[in-house]
Amino acid sequence: MTAPSGPPPDFPNAPPSPDVDDLVGRLLAGDRRALSRAITHVENGRPEGRLALAQLYARTGRAHVTGITGGSGAGKSTLTYRLALEQRRRGRSVGIVAVDPSSPFSHGAILGDRIRMQELTSDRDIFVRSMATRGELGGLAPMTDDVVAVLDAFGKDVVLVETVGAGQDEVEVASMADTTAVVVTPGGGDGVQAMKAGILEVADVLVINKADLPGADALAQQLQAVTPRDTHVPIVRTVATKGEGIGELADAIDAHREQLETSGDRERVALERARRRVLARARQRLLERLIGGPDGALRLDRLAASVAARELDPYTAAQRLVDGGS
Amino acid sequence: MTAPSGPPPDFPNAPPSPDVDDLVGRLLAGDRRALSRAITHVENGRPEGRLALAQLYARTGRAHVTGITGGSGAGKSTLTYRLALEQRRRGRSVGIVAVDPSSPFSHGAILGDRIRMQELTSDRDIFVRSMATRGELGGLAPMTDDVVAVLDAFGKDVVLVETVGAGQDEVEVASMADTTAVVVTPGGGDGVQAMKAGILEVADVLVINKADLPGADALAQQLQAVTPRDTHVPIVRTVATKGEGIGELADAIDAHREQLETSGDRERVALERARRRVLARARQRLLERLIGGPDGALRLDRLAASVAARELDPYTAAQRLVDGGS
Repeated sequence: MTAPSGPPPDFPNAPPSPDVDDLVGRLLAGDRRALSRAITHVENGRPEGRLALAQLYARTGRAHVTGITGGSGAGKSTLTYRLALEQRRRGRSVGIVAVDPSSPFSHGAILGDRIRMQELTSDRDIFVRSMATRGELGGLAPMTDDVVAVLDAFGKDVVLVETVGAGQDEVEVASMADTTAVVVTPGGGDGVQAMKAGILEVADVLVINKADLPGADALAQQLQAVTPRDTHVPIVRTVATKGEGIGELADAIDAHREQLETSGDRERVALERARRRVLARARQRLLERLIGGPDGALRLDRLAASVAARELDPYTAAQRLVDGGS
Repeated sequence: MTAPSGPPPDFPNAPPSPDVDDLVGRLLAGDRRALSRAITHVENGRPEGRLALAQLYARTGRAHVTGITGGSGAGKSTLTYRLALEQRRRGRSVGIVAVDPSSPFSHGAILGDRIRMQELTSDRDIFVRSMATRGELGGLAPMTDDVVAVLDAFGKDVVLVETVGAGQDEVEVASMADTTAVVVTPGGGDGVQAMKAGILEVADVLVINKADLPGADALAQQLQAVTPRDTHVPIVRTVATKGEGIGELADAIDAHREQLETSGDRERVALERARRRVLARARQRLLERLIGGPDGALRLDRLAASVAARELDPYTAAQRLVDGGS
């Protein structure tokens, strides 16, 4: 094999690389079907996906990645859709990754309105992808991050990542974005209580969606009270269903991006994000080694039986698994 | 060291074990302060915690562990409190572990009502512990599981684990319980949409709390529609603030427990749970090895810098980290 981009030796079971080379070549030439296929490889955890990523990674870092996160029912999908249109209006190509499996993006319609969805998908500069799977071994965050990287390398100016922001995984996804917008709504107790659960710290922009509902002012006051003063996290009010406040949201995202550039924070943030990226994939790799093969799986089953029978405690069992015993 | 329960050789930095032996002895004698201290050790990831667990693990498996999970604002804390009182009424000792850092348990009051909290804490057969930390390396699930194991070994008949049920981590916590009650409320879009996001599959009992609000019937119908018919997941209606439906909830939990015993499912479930336990701790152990020491941390920093500079892709960097290179 003489291809300069052949599979690195540390990918066992790597397929012949010409296929991947071809896929990457077509993707970089702007082929949307190649883009779609590369993303599928990544999502399915296939070696082709990793090989493609290894080639594409040097071309990443141009897209501005915006996380849009918040509780279910906060209107994130509609907001994401409106923001995508606004970014197009500003002359930017857009990728959308919807991580929430309950997102309307996953069902081919936004709030049941298929016409809107067609509006997005008929625009060749908007690419929408919803991720249904969660990743057995590796978790949600690295997989989403990989899909974003592929869109970035493809040349998208903006990538919008929609996630349900409540669990640790979702916070991790959000924290891999350049700018994270956290969406809350008046009433329902969804707002401040959810924010306390770990999502507030990752917010670069706070969005009060459904701001025409009663309680929006009170929510804004609450948010201001719990937001550290020195961070100056802007609070933007939107009514996504009517397209209100979307320009202001795009402005706030642009301002955060600008601030990242000028403050020198970008480098620090990028380093921290790279650290998380490496760590997440190392964890994945170690687990694959540990139980990816039939031997490992069998060993785990045996140890689990001893733990279930209370003959071993879980730590001793884990230690034996790691050490290769059974 | 001649103590039969000395530290196994695979715990480096293990402290002298007499302290742990003493702690375990006092805990098993019913000393609540020893219980509290052992839990603190576990929560802080200290070697003492693991050593104590290794000794205590053989004594676990008696408690019935009930997970209470659902969105923020669903009234889980009040429900947990009421269920604890009901279990006491049935003559069972109770441990409560509140994982949600925004839980009122964390603030020493339930819904601002300190008198109720005192009612719980003045009952020596109810032990309440809220977990504020989330665990840097290992994640939430194993840590919670360890705390539950300590309460189990202590002799609690019932352990109630309250978590915000939305992320993958929270689902993992819930799935370590014997019986998982998923709490939803009418209105707010919180219900069915949240359930689709992965929590429905782990529900053994569905609770419609705030069942006196409009929309409870519609929600019950929706839940019935999305619940697989052959699983017979019961739907219980409660108004936790008024104590309504709590007896029915306790009955449903008892019935599920009974069903686990008689169907032979208990063994299968226990095996699957043991598998997850071992795996979670193996993951933890591997990560500690990888970046626990100063060398590993430094290597990770260097690799992260290369990834941030796009000189390396995250997978190649992860591979080098795992292989011990830099």
